[in-house]
Amino acid sequence: MRYELYYWTGIQGRGEFVRLALEDAGADYIDVARKRGDKAIMPFLHGKQEGALPFAPPFLKAGRLVIAQTSIILAYLGPRLGLVPGGQSAEIYAQQLQLTIADFVAEIHDTHHPIASSQYYKDQRAAARKRTQAFRDERLPKFLGYFEQVLERGNGQRALSRHSYVDLSLFQLISGLDYAFPNAMRRLQTRTRRLRALAQRIDERPNIAAYLASPRRIPFNEDGIFRHYPELDPTA
Amino acid sequence: MRYELYYWTGIQGRGEFVRLALEDAGADYIDVARKRGDKAIMPFLHGKQEGALPFAPPFLKAGRLVIAQTSIILAYLGPRLGLVPGGQSAEIYAQQLQLTIADFVAEIHDTHHPIASSQYYKDQRAAARKRTQAFRDERLPKFLGYFEQVLERGNGQRALSRHSYVDLSLFQLISGLDYAFPNAMRRLQTRTRRLRALAQRIDERPNIAAYLASPRRIPFNEDGIFRHYPELDPTA
Repeated sequence: MRYELYYWTGIQGRGEFVRLALEDAGADYIDVARKRGDKAIMPFLHGKQEGALPFAPPFLKAGRLVIAQTSIILAYLGPRLGLVPGGQSAEIYAQQLQLTIADFVAEIHDTHHPIASSQYYKDQRAAARKRTQAFRDERLPKFLGYFEQVLERGNGQRALSRHSYVDLSLFQLISGLDYAFPNAMRRLQTRTRRLRALAQRIDERPNIAAYLASPRRIPFNEDGIFRHYPELDPTA
Repeated sequence: MRYELYYWTGIQGRGEFVRLALEDAGADYIDVARKRGDKAIMPFLHGKQEGALPFAPPFLKAGRLVIAQTSIILAYLGPRLGLVPGGQSAEIYAQQLQLTIADFVAEIHDTHHPIASSQYYKDQRAAARKRTQAFRDERLPKFLGYFEQVLERGNGQRALSRHSYVDLSLFQLISGLDYAFPNAMRRLQTRTRRLRALAQRIDERPNIAAYLASPRRIPFNEDGIFRHYPELDPTA
């Protein structure tokens, strides 16, 4: 099966969680918009295609099936790409963890866009400072502490009993947070030891290392979810 | 199977989407915290129970399985309660729609809490006004327009080929938005005809009508997701 991934060009965004799974598994896929441009996405959003109506990218075409929402794409791909342990309870737990990552990602995005996604960052900078302070003080340690505890309950190294798409997504989270908030992340280093060890191991997986070194990996930038604005990440 | 639902007392919150499914199907369930208090939730959050570690309520106990995240609870209950059409593509589409509802709900919550959930509304009122204006002008019509289109693509009346948990959740969305933003919703009336007809039909389903009239239905209030603050819903 050749999978077709549809996601905006120019940013890693939510599409990156899907890319990492496809790349890690060595799956056959096309990153459609990067081949044909963002306009390839529009017929789906405008309801010109049969089947499911996506609200937004990313969505995956698998044969005739159109699957939107990152977490559901991964829940679908997991068993097919060998990226989730077998059994109902493991699959459900993986989905729950992935959705909690999605909730965290939405909060990370809103640190720089607390008022409206449609407005420029510079026009909501005052609110962004306030939101990001609460994020750094409360939400960042809470979510990372939660995932650290998840690894402890797994086998100490992984979220589940074996390698999974959740581990790949945790790698992406840590990478993005290190890019956006290097100072805040440094202060949390001793409380995120298991997450850091996991991220390191994922970084060294041959398919992931090859992907990260390739032009297919879009660099982090200030159009995506994880943005580095020095005023939102003070040194202390 | 007697299901155990765990959710904070005092608010409808995200737990309400699960309650509506259980009530509509006449399922055997206990609303645990409303019987034993919010303290019944804590052992799960503190990792004192086996199995999945929830980040937050709601979560459902089904035998030994612990399932967190509203959308995943509903994906699990759907086939078991006859609340989703059969077949992989319908189940996946239902999940996608439910997750899009969840995204919308998070944005609705953040209209009154754009800076931090941990701070009082009155301390973030200025930002709330700005965020809610963008919400009323852009996000509210966009999401409702999307779901209206979903109903058109269904059979004109339902999201999927037959009654489902997605329809119940759309009812809850419309009910909550009518409570929080009566003026904005009135202005969108002609553009939400299918959603309004759906909400009316759900309201009249015998089990739902009985539930809504019972003390089990917590009234909307200013501690929940859908809050009515007149300054956030101007008459024009």
